[in-house]
Amino acid sequence: MRERYEQLSPSEFFYRNREVAGFSNPTRAVYQAVRELVENALDATEMYGLLPDVKIEVGEEADGRVRICVEDNGVGVSALEVPNVFGRVFYGSKYVLRQARGVFGLGVKMAVLYAQLTTGQPVRIRTATRKSPFIYEFDVLIDVERNLPVIRNLRVLRNVDGWHGTRVELLLRGNWQQARRRVEEYIRRTAMITPYATITFRCPQSSLTFERSSSKLPPAPAVGKPHPKGVDVEMLRRMVERCRRGATLAKFLSTHFDGVGPITAQKFCEWAGFDPNMEVKELRVEDLEELAAKMQAYGGWRRPRPITLSPLGEELLIRGVKSVLKPEFATAVTRPPSSYAGHPFIVEVAIAYGGEVPPAEEPILYRFANRIPLLYDEGVDVAKKVVRKIDWSVYKVKMPAPLAVVTHICSTKVPFKGVGKEAVADVPEVERELEMGLRECARRLRRHLSRLERMMEVKRWEVTMRKYVDEVARAIGYVTGDGEDLLRRRLLELIKSRLARRGVAR
Amino acid sequence: MRERYEQLSPSEFFYRNREVAGFSNPTRAVYQAVRELVENALDATEMYGLLPDVKIEVGEEADGRVRICVEDNGVGVSALEVPNVFGRVFYGSKYVLRQARGVFGLGVKMAVLYAQLTTGQPVRIRTATRKSPFIYEFDVLIDVERNLPVIRNLRVLRNVDGWHGTRVELLLRGNWQQARRRVEEYIRRTAMITPYATITFRCPQSSLTFERSSSKLPPAPAVGKPHPKGVDVEMLRRMVERCRRGATLAKFLSTHFDGVGPITAQKFCEWAGFDPNMEVKELRVEDLEELAAKMQAYGGWRRPRPITLSPLGEELLIRGVKSVLKPEFATAVTRPPSSYAGHPFIVEVAIAYGGEVPPAEEPILYRFANRIPLLYDEGVDVAKKVVRKIDWSVYKVKMPAPLAVVTHICSTKVPFKGVGKEAVADVPEVERELEMGLRECARRLRRHLSRLERMMEVKRWEVTMRKYVDEVARAIGYVTGDGEDLLRRRLLELIKSRLARRGVAR
Repeated sequence: MRERYEQLSPSEFFYRNREVAGFSNPTRAVYQAVRELVENALDATEMYGLLPDVKIEVGEEADGRVRICVEDNGVGVSALEVPNVFGRVFYGSKYVLRQARGVFGLGVKMAVLYAQLTTGQPVRIRTATRKSPFIYEFDVLIDVERNLPVIRNLRVLRNVDGWHGTRVELLLRGNWQQARRRVEEYIRRTAMITPYATITFRCPQSSLTFERSSSKLPPAPAVGKPHPKGVDVEMLRRMVERCRRGATLAKFLSTHFDGVGPITAQKFCEWAGFDPNMEVKELRVEDLEELAAKMQAYGGWRRPRPITLSPLGEELLIRGVKSVLKPEFATAVTRPPSSYAGHPFIVEVAIAYGGEVPPAEEPILYRFANRIPLLYDEGVDVAKKVVRKIDWSVYKVKMPAPLAVVTHICSTKVPFKGVGKEAVADVPEVERELEMGLRECARRLRRHLSRLERMMEVKRWEVTMRKYVDEVARAIGYVTGDGEDLLRRRLLELIKSRLARRGVAR
Repeated sequence: MRERYEQLSPSEFFYRNREVAGFSNPTRAVYQAVRELVENALDATEMYGLLPDVKIEVGEEADGRVRICVEDNGVGVSALEVPNVFGRVFYGSKYVLRQARGVFGLGVKMAVLYAQLTTGQPVRIRTATRKSPFIYEFDVLIDVERNLPVIRNLRVLRNVDGWHGTRVELLLRGNWQQARRRVEEYIRRTAMITPYATITFRCPQSSLTFERSSSKLPPAPAVGKPHPKGVDVEMLRRMVERCRRGATLAKFLSTHFDGVGPITAQKFCEWAGFDPNMEVKELRVEDLEELAAKMQAYGGWRRPRPITLSPLGEELLIRGVKSVLKPEFATAVTRPPSSYAGHPFIVEVAIAYGGEVPPAEEPILYRFANRIPLLYDEGVDVAKKVVRKIDWSVYKVKMPAPLAVVTHICSTKVPFKGVGKEAVADVPEVERELEMGLRECARRLRRHLSRLERMMEVKRWEVTMRKYVDEVARAIGYVTGDGEDLLRRRLLELIKSRLARRGVAR
């Protein structure tokens, strides 16, 4: 028996193993396709300072064919890049150190691939960059075996209205009836985490509109340098290869790494036993290994700077939570930047209580990562682990309670458990930050609940007292001969002053 | 701000996103590397009818460097293919329809990549195919940016002893102390599912040997054709492209698909409204879409044949379970072949009870897929879902109980939730088969427990009766004047016959 060896192209690999990218069945595929398109739409707007306006349309056609169309008002894709961006797996512009929804260069291609393999239809892309005199309309298929785009059609139109953005239209086979609820939930949660976006959704059965509740965009993330703690031998080898001759180790460190200045570089070299003035090109593989290990172990680096991140901020997060969940009480915490393995991250946590939040045995969890709502695989997510860890009775919450927990992890590298981006791994640093944030929110909730309790108690006391005022006034009047009205007024004043004191005392 | 677009090679992609392939931290990486090597070793032996002899050695070196070495007595890798097999992502011989542990063409490369990026050291491969006069020893690195192997060293030795097999040696940075328990558990479970293998494991702290408890190999799987239910437009298009001119649709169907003969092909064409005699090359994209949809929907196909599968069988499974878990009672069920989306699969379930199985609140679950033990992410696995569904009290099991459940899913396409192969998705067909198998095992356990209960009861009765034999014999002897000894013998006979009757009656 002779073995036949083959090399698969990346397209071929994901065509065969589409379920690992979330395209595991006709329901999930529709959800995943919508997701990928919406996430690209949001990246294409807010990363460039544009307030997002995203239109999602889903139509049902004969024989279980579903038409998905997503349009944004973003920066568009340059015509030269369109074929590769939509028809080539692992091709993209987001392979930089910066927080973004898309990172794998895979999502939209998977949607295109899935459409192609279920209906054979190309994706239709209509796009114009800002100030472009033309609008381009492409029909693209993927040559799966070679991982190359195939352009089926190209139309060039005059851009008379100065439109810019991207509109993507796909036709795939899927189960819309079952996917609908997930998709609507996804959109609702997206609206929660992007309160500065206007999102409209239309399908045969319903339509939803989420108007922006704020027109303040969080500051866009900048592109950063790698942090010395996150280095590996392969990375060092490549960086050294690209160095020019004559560069010293100290210079190399202070030029290419985040937060490393000449002084830190010097100090590190001393600590690690490397000559800061040695030529960096002279490091052999063994030296590189040692250098990488020392860089990972050194305790004197500055923390990664969070310029690459773009958390929502407490104010926007509360606004998003309030506008979608409509609770009686909401609070949010944005934790200070932290890092794991050289990747900076920021955790945000919010709690919503009462109002329209439905009571449940466990807190309802809304998970987000880089502003992506995560709907599947909650059971293995680090956020779930943290929520489970907390004894809510400590915070005066008696389950079942109308309690929702919102978690948001921003990072240049969210530790997702799979390319389908549905669950975050339990990296200890992330877990710790989540817990700190959640406990802070929970403490605020306890204060709120205590205040409510106190108010209730005082109210009860007042009601009881007022009930007897007439009776007591009459009785005292009978004994002392004072006027009943006067006594009643005095007693009411007494109650009022007591109430005022109680309000202060506690 | 101008975007810079990049195309990543598959190596580069997985280098950057190694955690999606299971290499998420220094502990997990060691475990994952051992796993990948062991799985390749087992595939290289049993798939070719060789009884596996696998030697695993782990050594600790300075600065957290871990040396992993796995050797098998398999068919070896031809010298021409070694560089690609170990140094090129998505390159492999297992991209065929046949049950195998490896399917992604990714695992061993990830181990090589991880070694390279943590220590910069190449992988060392020593291999000889059967009857090869030479043994080849390669040192291979991966050119990550181009996804190509780099040969660092090649030695050719005379194969004087007629050795064949493969020995792979890696040096990576990892946390052996923490990984050790997982690795040992992994090996223990591997031994459970491969009772025909001898596996030895040595590390500085311990050594384990699992001698084969059977020298019967389950029949090796054959390479199959795709099932018509699992077809998609892309696949049809490619198959049609490769057809020769003049082939008819009926011929096309009966040649290229599993279980489709000329009659089934005719019947299908009639049902679907296609002319069986049309030339297959004349089908347009729209026709292919319709054809694919009809093929998926048609109810008249034969089930996928399980020739591509290699379940362990009830006897071997029980043997494996007994030799590792040492229970008082063990039973196993191999379910008949089934299929989902055109992929054949077979589910096997075993239950072990009592003996050395430790009592626990929930049944201890041992999950396997294509003979791979799955240790992580149990919470989202379909097997866990099924085990949770079952009310054990129905089967006379009172938790906490010394109960272990073993599940094994064999398929040409196990619906793994990620390329790290740790959890199986809850495909309804798989779930159903698991439940049927588990309930059958549970019923057998109930019978066993009932029998135990009855035996206990009878034993108790016997003990009570025997206690009074002397007394009663004496009393009757006093009244009737018969000899005590005779009476005692008669009474004992009476008890014995009653016992025999009870044994039959119930």
